[in-house]
Amino acid sequence: MKTHKILNDPVYGFVKLPYGILFDLVEHPWFQRLRRIKQVSLTHYVYPGALHTRFHHALGALHLMQMALETLRGKGVEITDEECEAAQIAILLHDIGHGPFSHTLEHTLMEVHHEEVSLWFMEQLNEQFAGKLNMAIRIFKKEYPKAFLGQLVSGQLDMDRMDYLMRDSYFTGVSEGVIGYDRIIKMLNVVDGQLVVEEKGIYSVERFLTSRRIMYWQVYLHKTVLAAEQMLIKVLERARQLCQEGREVEAPVSLDYFLRHRVTSDDFKSNAAEQLRRFARLDDMDIASAIKHWQLNPDPILSYLSWGLANRKLFRLEFSGEPFSMANKVAVREALKQNKTLPKGADQHFLLEGKESNSAYTLSSKEILVLTKKGEVVPMSQISDFGIEPKTFTKYFLCYPKNHHHELTH
Amino acid sequence: MKTHKILNDPVYGFVKLPYGILFDLVEHPWFQRLRRIKQVSLTHYVYPGALHTRFHHALGALHLMQMALETLRGKGVEITDEECEAAQIAILLHDIGHGPFSHTLEHTLMEVHHEEVSLWFMEQLNEQFAGKLNMAIRIFKKEYPKAFLGQLVSGQLDMDRMDYLMRDSYFTGVSEGVIGYDRIIKMLNVVDGQLVVEEKGIYSVERFLTSRRIMYWQVYLHKTVLAAEQMLIKVLERARQLCQEGREVEAPVSLDYFLRHRVTSDDFKSNAAEQLRRFARLDDMDIASAIKHWQLNPDPILSYLSWGLANRKLFRLEFSGEPFSMANKVAVREALKQNKTLPKGADQHFLLEGKESNSAYTLSSKEILVLTKKGEVVPMSQISDFGIEPKTFTKYFLCYPKNHHHELTH
Amino acid sequence: MKTHKILNDPVYGFVKLPYGILFDLVEHPWFQRLRRIKQVSLTHYVYPGALHTRFHHALGALHLMQMALETLRGKGVEITDEECEAAQIAILLHDIGHGPFSHTLEHTLMEVHHEEVSLWFMEQLNEQFAGKLNMAIRIFKKEYPKAFLGQLVSGQLDMDRMDYLMRDSYFTGVSEGVIGYDRIIKMLNVVDGQLVVEEKGIYSVERFLTSRRIMYWQVYLHKTVLAAEQMLIKVLERARQLCQEGREVEAPVSLDYFLRHRVTSDDFKSNAAEQLRRFARLDDMDIASAIKHWQLNPDPILSYLSWGLANRKLFRLEFSGEPFSMANKVAVREALKQNKTLPKGADQHFLLEGKESNSAYTLSSKEILVLTKKGEVVPMSQISDFGIEPKTFTKYFLCYPKNHHHELTH
Amino acid sequence: MKTHKILNDPVYGFVKLPYGILFDLVEHPWFQRLRRIKQVSLTHYVYPGALHTRFHHALGALHLMQMALETLRGKGVEITDEECEAAQIAILLHDIGHGPFSHTLEHTLMEVHHEEVSLWFMEQLNEQFAGKLNMAIRIFKKEYPKAFLGQLVSGQLDMDRMDYLMRDSYFTGVSEGVIGYDRIIKMLNVVDGQLVVEEKGIYSVERFLTSRRIMYWQVYLHKTVLAAEQMLIKVLERARQLCQEGREVEAPVSLDYFLRHRVTSDDFKSNAAEQLRRFARLDDMDIASAIKHWQLNPDPILSYLSWGLANRKLFRLEFSGEPFSMANKVAVREALKQNKTLPKGADQHFLLEGKESNSAYTLSSKEILVLTKKGEVVPMSQISDFGIEPKTFTKYFLCYPKNHHHELTH
Repeated sequence: MKTHKILNDPVYGFVKLPYGILFDLVEHPWFQRLRRIKQVSLTHYVYPGALHTRFHHALGALHLMQMALETLRGKGVEITDEECEAAQIAILLHDIGHGPFSHTLEHTLMEVHHEEVSLWFMEQLNEQFAGKLNMAIRIFKKEYPKAFLGQLVSGQLDMDRMDYLMRDSYFTGVSEGVIGYDRIIKMLNVVDGQLVVEEKGIYSVERFLTSRRIMYWQVYLHKTVLAAEQMLIKVLERARQLCQEGREVEAPVSLDYFLRHRVTSDDFKSNAAEQLRRFARLDDMDIASAIKHWQLNPDPILSYLSWGLANRKLFRLEFSGEPFSMANKVAVREALKQNKTLPKGADQHFLLEGKESNSAYTLSSKEILVLTKKGEVVPMSQISDFGIEPKTFTKYFLCYPKNHHHELTH
Repeated sequence: MKTHKILNDPVYGFVKLPYGILFDLVEHPWFQRLRRIKQVSLTHYVYPGALHTRFHHALGALHLMQMALETLRGKGVEITDEECEAAQIAILLHDIGHGPFSHTLEHTLMEVHHEEVSLWFMEQLNEQFAGKLNMAIRIFKKEYPKAFLGQLVSGQLDMDRMDYLMRDSYFTGVSEGVIGYDRIIKMLNVVDGQLVVEEKGIYSVERFLTSRRIMYWQVYLHKTVLAAEQMLIKVLERARQLCQEGREVEAPVSLDYFLRHRVTSDDFKSNAAEQLRRFARLDDMDIASAIKHWQLNPDPILSYLSWGLANRKLFRLEFSGEPFSMANKVAVREALKQNKTLPKGADQHFLLEGKESNSAYTLSSKEILVLTKKGEVVPMSQISDFGIEPKTFTKYFLCYPKNHHHELTH
Repeated sequence: MKTHKILNDPVYGFVKLPYGILFDLVEHPWFQRLRRIKQVSLTHYVYPGALHTRFHHALGALHLMQMALETLRGKGVEITDEECEAAQIAILLHDIGHGPFSHTLEHTLMEVHHEEVSLWFMEQLNEQFAGKLNMAIRIFKKEYPKAFLGQLVSGQLDMDRMDYLMRDSYFTGVSEGVIGYDRIIKMLNVVDGQLVVEEKGIYSVERFLTSRRIMYWQVYLHKTVLAAEQMLIKVLERARQLCQEGREVEAPVSLDYFLRHRVTSDDFKSNAAEQLRRFARLDDMDIASAIKHWQLNPDPILSYLSWGLANRKLFRLEFSGEPFSMANKVAVREALKQNKTLPKGADQHFLLEGKESNSAYTLSSKEILVLTKKGEVVPMSQISDFGIEPKTFTKYFLCYPKNHHHELTH
Repeated sequence: MKTHKILNDPVYGFVKLPYGILFDLVEHPWFQRLRRIKQVSLTHYVYPGALHTRFHHALGALHLMQMALETLRGKGVEITDEECEAAQIAILLHDIGHGPFSHTLEHTLMEVHHEEVSLWFMEQLNEQFAGKLNMAIRIFKKEYPKAFLGQLVSGQLDMDRMDYLMRDSYFTGVSEGVIGYDRIIKMLNVVDGQLVVEEKGIYSVERFLTSRRIMYWQVYLHKTVLAAEQMLIKVLERARQLCQEGREVEAPVSLDYFLRHRVTSDDFKSNAAEQLRRFARLDDMDIASAIKHWQLNPDPILSYLSWGLANRKLFRLEFSGEPFSMANKVAVREALKQNKTLPKGADQHFLLEGKESNSAYTLSSKEILVLTKKGEVVPMSQISDFGIEPKTFTKYFLCYPKNHHHELTH
């Protein structure tokens, strides 16, 4: 009798999906919905292959979790069959709370963090599956005694990060994100309930940190990607504003609700089932379709932004190591005002600013732990002075229209 | 001064997009629209990575065309700079006429073949770009004297096929589709204006044919993919039927038009600009978004099909080497009628049938030509008895619901 | 406790070598000796990366055997732990009888076939390991009741062929030899004790056959490779002849013995231990070192051939679909005689001829068996007309010096 | 007319060897000899695929040099055709002075550094090729005005290092050595005659440094590799000592000379042609063949070491961050003395010690220079605090026999 289904994953070859609760969760419409949520939002505007989804990522992370659990068991770490399944459920569902365009719209659509939403989903699923997710939820919440199980789900060296580096690297073609995931996993171990990496694996961990850093600056925070994402946030904010002003904004019903309501954690607390049902109806497709149609909306701000996104006429984005001065911003605003090809109000609406920071590794209390050849457990930063960034790197940005001539061809 | 933009293509590493007309065409909204049309329709239901688009494919085929032109010039084949550019334009735009979900809906949405639409697009673009596409159009239509240029665009060994095999293989993870594209291209030559492959390349060509065949049965005509695509055709047909009956079918305006009109070649002839504008507004996003919402449509047939597609509850599909008997079909219909979990009318609407055929290579007048070591040009089938299929292989299929319990979770 | 050692194999990532008899056999000097025998003889003269050894191939084939056994067990095929180990031993040692430069010198050094020598080695090892190889030997000799175990070791779809295609492809860089080994292995099954491949695996098998064919003509029987190998055979024959004539031919003692004795099967029968000890002392290194020194040997024939091999001044090789005519050969001989840059006797010694044939697949009684979807077992050729070559392809060759000027720089 | 020969390099696909002086140099016996010198000595004892040669590396580095020169020219850096060829010659021949087992025996066989020998070879070749290597020699010696040409040949970011990281990674299968060589090369530029890397390439350079570091500890200084190499040094030293004592040590004539003479720089100065001729006759083959035969030598020290190397019974090696204490060493010596399975004299001959250090990057005056977005040129260490190791890392080692029972099976 077959115990699992085999899936083709270009990143790893073949991956196994065990029959039973794991298979059933994947079949669930809430999980299938992740097929319509891109892993890296608008990154495909720069790397056209980057259309992979949260669905694929979750299955990949599951695969790595299976490898890690097998390795640990092979080293004599006690993991019961139930714990094994629970850890797999936890990683499978860790991102189920992501909404359209993942992180980009995370704070625009609702006032709820995606991990919180993941937890709401898990609890609802736990009801539907008669309590079978109890242990997985405790692992996810880091309340389960065997801490290493939670650390495999989220931590500085977790299966989530390993999969997304491998996967984003594969689909963007930025080969420099590739990591020695199999070697790192083979070097995992557990000491006093904590996940550790054996000393001879530290070079692979250093490389993992370098890869993560390279992916940040070359992909996730790529200027053009960031510009597109800023426009996406802005276009949604504008649509919501118009709705609130009573202006007509055509949108699929799934999206319409979120334009008219600002959902908060309290809303989930008072009626999780209802909020989840609404949230689960929404994905990248509705927003992409809506934006395309908003090109014809009478509001020139909404229309301009939508045209830019639909046809990849993206804003310029400038980075700086320091905050931009007021004088800087005034100058850009003035230029936008003078620019006759831009709609009226460009100076108020089209100067987008913010900051981004990245730290490949933080010297927090939750450092990666290394098991030395002598059998001691020490934080990574004590044993390697390589790949450990002393401080978080912050970049400020200013983002505004290039001189595109906005011509509708439709 | 930079002469080209460099893009990251995971399939080939880096690809070049020359500035000038080629760059401008890529920037055009009609070309950008291809970002929202998946290359292989619903194949991602089986191979979750297969979300790549016609946009990416067109750029990849352009890259191979550049390699081929450079190789031929290196062998002394005379190709002017203008011809070089024209051949690149022709391959870049060869698929611009594809609509949502590419081949799947080709004959459902309109009564016009995609190559015909590509030509309409090219002609409109030719007007917009002041006649700069003249030569490209002649090449595309195979009216240009140097026949090999058109053969590089479409033929039994063209840049289109090479790119899609490589690309579909990469994104599905079916590594068996990989071909020695660089070796084949290095072996191309021209004799009497015809594209030929040098004899020592025939093993690579045999492998190309094997790969193509494997991709057909393992990917393009995969049972589950075909089942999903049949459902997609059916859901659109049902939506159109309901519209015609005056029933309410919510759809984005772009799609709405095509549900209410059956556009033909004649419509294009009478007003190409208008038809293209309408057609260019439509893509995968609108249809995916609409189908998701149709789950709530009062029509149980539309709703059931939409639910199945949105949540991947797909029909079963059976293949047979011979046509299915009437008795067979009657039996399935009766079972559908008895099945209480299916909506009323299942027996009339849910038995989908058809046939698919594949020929890796045909013994037509347009066979691949081989330049032997002795300098003769002979058809491939005279020199290799390997990989040449004597006849087209046809498979008949029957497709109908499994016993899914149709529960709406939204 | 660790059950196996992990090795790095660039072809498969990591491979496992189980502790116990398998590990001990690998540690044995007779097996370590395979580190000094190149898998593909002089192929590196054309593909400089092709320096991989029989040692590496044996470990790779072991890895595939492990995958195959695990797959079959997973499908319920009964395989005891002892059989599992025996099948692994059989594949590990299947090529242990190869001598220097593998096939090239197989019939030049001794009058014994390498499979026969493998068997002599296994029997000696069986004595050394107290009978632990009994079952492996029966499997190797195809005398074990469960025929499929022997078929995994040698047959038209065995682990040996799969590994060498993958490995030779990797190290030559001829990517067209890559096969879907993992997919094929997943499709293996056993019916009535015979190894079969499930029907949906036939495309992968077709591709395996195409790959094999391509590797034959592009690598194994590459003109330049064949020319080098012909020279290698000739140089050894000349050295032996000189020895027999009492002329001085400096050689390491290990080689010296074989130059002076023509070892036959009977010699093995009368004293296997002694013959194996002598044979095991000899490998590529001795021959390469000797040839280099023979450049200075007073015999001009030996010296010329050695110079050509050491400095890659290789003979020209011509292929023909038909045997070369006597007139042809006379003409070449005459030219060699006239050529003043060649040593005296060139006409007698430097015209090398022969034939090579390749059949990717033979329609023998031992055809690949396919398990159809209906549960029948049929020979591959009944279900696929693709990739099945109706007849063996034979090419005749003639091989003789180019106009190299033979100048010693040492 | 063909301008170049195409070679298959599994690392890069296809590489070009231009006809003319470059082709002729590759054809030269001195260059062909590099086919018999492994790039990474005895690394194949741990990574069985690592049998690649200096020959292959030189061609790979040539390929990268071609890419770099083309990139720089494309950015407007003036490089004449003659300089272009000279830079290619310099990289092609940069390692031609390597002797058997490359670095391992560098100071054991002769008292001359391999770069010095490379230069002697180049000068002799310059005579043979009528002065055509003049400019290449100046570039190699860093005497040519355009400093960047020499920096491409050797420096902290040169084509040599890039190729060996890629190549060693490919053939060992340690995928973590892979670098984004194409991206780095695309980011190269020249300012004031100095090679610089554009700022947006620094992440790739960081990764290059991490890769280099990982390859050091995981491959080049792997404990077992180092142990084997220490034994190789020791076996040669012992053979030489025996020769000097007048004891019989059978060796091929090419090796015999070096066992009896200690060649110095002065010997080259007095008669370069003669020394080179002798040196060029010697390669890995002779030494491997000799060691195998020395297993039967009457000297137990020579025989034991030879047996260990031939059959991979390697010494144990211990690393320490600090020098080993005298007490430590005395203890090991005593144990060796007591060990009855070891030959007499083991305590004097079998305790091998030394140290190894690695610095991925040094803060020397020859730092990698970065061209910032503002157009300034600054040392890498000023712009990145990542991947820059503040100090060189040194490890001390002690190496001595495990408890192998030394049984000759031959």
